[in-house]
Amino acid sequence: MSPAATPKPSTASPIIAILTDFGLRDPYVGIMKGVMLGATLVDIGHEIPPQDVQKAALDLADSVTWFPPETVFVAVVDPGVGSARRAVVASVGPTHLVGPDNGLLVPAVERLAAAQVSEGLAVRDIQEGTYTLPASQTFHGRDIFAPIAAHLAAGVDAERIGPLGEPLARIDLPQPRRRQDPPSLVGRILRVDGFGNLRTNIPGDWVAGLEGSALNVSMGALRPALEVPLVTSYATVPTGALLLIVGSAGTVELSVAGGSASQALGIGAGQPLELRPARAEVR
Amino acid sequence: MSPAATPKPSTASPIIAILTDFGLRDPYVGIMKGVMLGATLVDIGHEIPPQDVQKAALDLADSVTWFPPETVFVAVVDPGVGSARRAVVASVGPTHLVGPDNGLLVPAVERLAAAQVSEGLAVRDIQEGTYTLPASQTFHGRDIFAPIAAHLAAGVDAERIGPLGEPLARIDLPQPRRRQDPPSLVGRILRVDGFGNLRTNIPGDWVAGLEGSALNVSMGALRPALEVPLVTSYATVPTGALLLIVGSAGTVELSVAGGSASQALGIGAGQPLELRPARAEVR
Amino acid sequence: MSPAATPKPSTASPIIAILTDFGLRDPYVGIMKGVMLGATLVDIGHEIPPQDVQKAALDLADSVTWFPPETVFVAVVDPGVGSARRAVVASVGPTHLVGPDNGLLVPAVERLAAAQVSEGLAVRDIQEGTYTLPASQTFHGRDIFAPIAAHLAAGVDAERIGPLGEPLARIDLPQPRRRQDPPSLVGRILRVDGFGNLRTNIPGDWVAGLEGSALNVSMGALRPALEVPLVTSYATVPTGALLLIVGSAGTVELSVAGGSASQALGIGAGQPLELRPARAEVR
Repeated sequence: MSPAATPKPSTASPIIAILTDFGLRDPYVGIMKGVMLGATLVDIGHEIPPQDVQKAALDLADSVTWFPPETVFVAVVDPGVGSARRAVVASVGPTHLVGPDNGLLVPAVERLAAAQVSEGLAVRDIQEGTYTLPASQTFHGRDIFAPIAAHLAAGVDAERIGPLGEPLARIDLPQPRRRQDPPSLVGRILRVDGFGNLRTNIPGDWVAGLEGSALNVSMGALRPALEVPLVTSYATVPTGALLLIVGSAGTVELSVAGGSASQALGIGAGQPLELRPARAEVR
Repeated sequence: MSPAATPKPSTASPIIAILTDFGLRDPYVGIMKGVMLGATLVDIGHEIPPQDVQKAALDLADSVTWFPPETVFVAVVDPGVGSARRAVVASVGPTHLVGPDNGLLVPAVERLAAAQVSEGLAVRDIQEGTYTLPASQTFHGRDIFAPIAAHLAAGVDAERIGPLGEPLARIDLPQPRRRQDPPSLVGRILRVDGFGNLRTNIPGDWVAGLEGSALNVSMGALRPALEVPLVTSYATVPTGALLLIVGSAGTVELSVAGGSASQALGIGAGQPLELRPARAEVR
Repeated sequence: MSPAATPKPSTASPIIAILTDFGLRDPYVGIMKGVMLGATLVDIGHEIPPQDVQKAALDLADSVTWFPPETVFVAVVDPGVGSARRAVVASVGPTHLVGPDNGLLVPAVERLAAAQVSEGLAVRDIQEGTYTLPASQTFHGRDIFAPIAAHLAAGVDAERIGPLGEPLARIDLPQPRRRQDPPSLVGRILRVDGFGNLRTNIPGDWVAGLEGSALNVSMGALRPALEVPLVTSYATVPTGALLLIVGSAGTVELSVAGGSASQALGIGAGQPLELRPARAEVR
């Protein structure tokens, strides 16, 4: 999953990738960028629903392995701004992640650690002062996180940002599991994307070998179970038909060819679902 | 229409301009950018309605001549991802356009060819392998198109991307025409922009010389014909009044001064319309 | 309020920051960027409601001091495009602001002037010709403002852009005031942000020392007066509770912890409000 085939950047401009729930209607993102100029600034996204830490954590995790290892990520979805929640830098090898300690960074850290031989996670508590701006009461993205990211990108050693701290706070992401008798895969819709694709937390390799067959999808007693084919391309089924496919994040997705599964089924993030082989056993 | 007056970039950083229907709520655009870092990345837009190849094709065509000739354009509106549709590089002189072969690139290629002395269109079929990432089943923007664009921007010769292929697939864009008796111009609304301006496909030079006079606009038997002045500035008419004007894409637009023609008339893309001189002949 | 703590950019790439009401659905912003390539381009925002000069003026003013002093700002919210309104460059020390002369630039100019020892405001009328593109009738962002910004960023002296002109046209921004008997602060909601925070025009230092106490907020005869605590952190009050806080722009904001004050109160920009000490005097 590493973009080894892409050309190496010829310039040594450091990279900061940014993820927030600030939206694009207000000047907040632009102001953060003003503070971080000097690095190459890349948006992962700013339309995270306000204060939806889980969606942001997933988006960040799905993004981190596609950037060069030396990237500094700054993520600000921060309902606790101004409270006692820590501001941290989590470093995995050469990659730094800057943000509030509310679980936002954890799935990304795990993804990075899994992609590297050596984990080497270091969590540091950001100290306000030399490398931050005077902090307002409401906008630590501008005053704390952006200047810390800028300094890390400019080569300031993480050790100078602050002392090693406690492990990161975790968020309670639902975990998929396999049932045995009868065999089934139990998971949850983690995210709906702009096309209406329903991304589950069920790993793609749990359905390996079942491509081409139909799975029984149940989503609670109040909804009729569906029989949906597991395909390897949207184009396999007619436009408008439901399908299951292993998506770009490596997990099972429920989609409608040329349409929106979310609209067709009236389903959003959080929905539990269970997959059973319609005619064969899940391995 | 060429921005010859603008200063030459002092650095030789290659440029990639990106157009997709991925939206800004999901991390897909950011992930593509992670793969293309090293070039200067410019967004043409990502809020194309899902799978609206025609709108994307128009937006791309309206954009290409305003970028430096060596720009690599990567456009991904790709309902057929994973099907047998080709992935191509279309090169017009020094400009490369990377995307699916579903008509998306054709109007831009025609615009570029018209702007240059020598056409020299070359269409190449992208070969997966050396210059692409391992392809997922759903996200060729990340796995195929982005790395190809990155390599082209980094100076890899287009000949190494793949062999010359068939001509590009075309989309069926409605063509304007002139009627003679009685004289009129027959066209269609191609696009509604965020201000509610209705952009037609009627070339501005078809109405040259009629500025200052009124035109009769008919939009089907169910709508009353309107008499609308052809002006050279929105400010010519009172706020709230309808007007015709040759817009920035060089075609006739139907607008409301200080308002939205789309809202005022309840009209969207696809609407046929016919223009007749109210008192004089269309030349 | 100056980001002195951030690292100096190591490269000397000039910076252009862009603010428009063009939205992100259309290619207009991308086209402007094509014209300005060569500088580092930063978006302040493009989702200003169409032709809302006041919101744009506020956003620009809140942004300018967070960018390096040599930044060129180009702002295009231009209901009068094509009319006789001037196109100007306003220079405050090393900072240039490019846009229409409709009041859009004034609050930013005042903020910059207040932040610097020497004001040195120079207003120049843009001359079409050498440093502009042939002007269309509808898109001066592309044809006039972008190429002027590009040339200024590339080092062209402002004196060559055009002659010194009249003072800038002003917009009528509501001014806050203090009443004496009984003592109160009278202001207005200037802006609603994406979180639903209601930003007033009442300076934060007018409520200095009152943190921790409750203020009486009245918003007209038809709404019940509210008693709202002035806090220094959203986390001081329970989720869902109203609060007053001095926000990141240095003015009083009315917010709901973990929610939207705009939704909770059904209030938007323009709403007058009056603050009174619930138990103590406003100083």
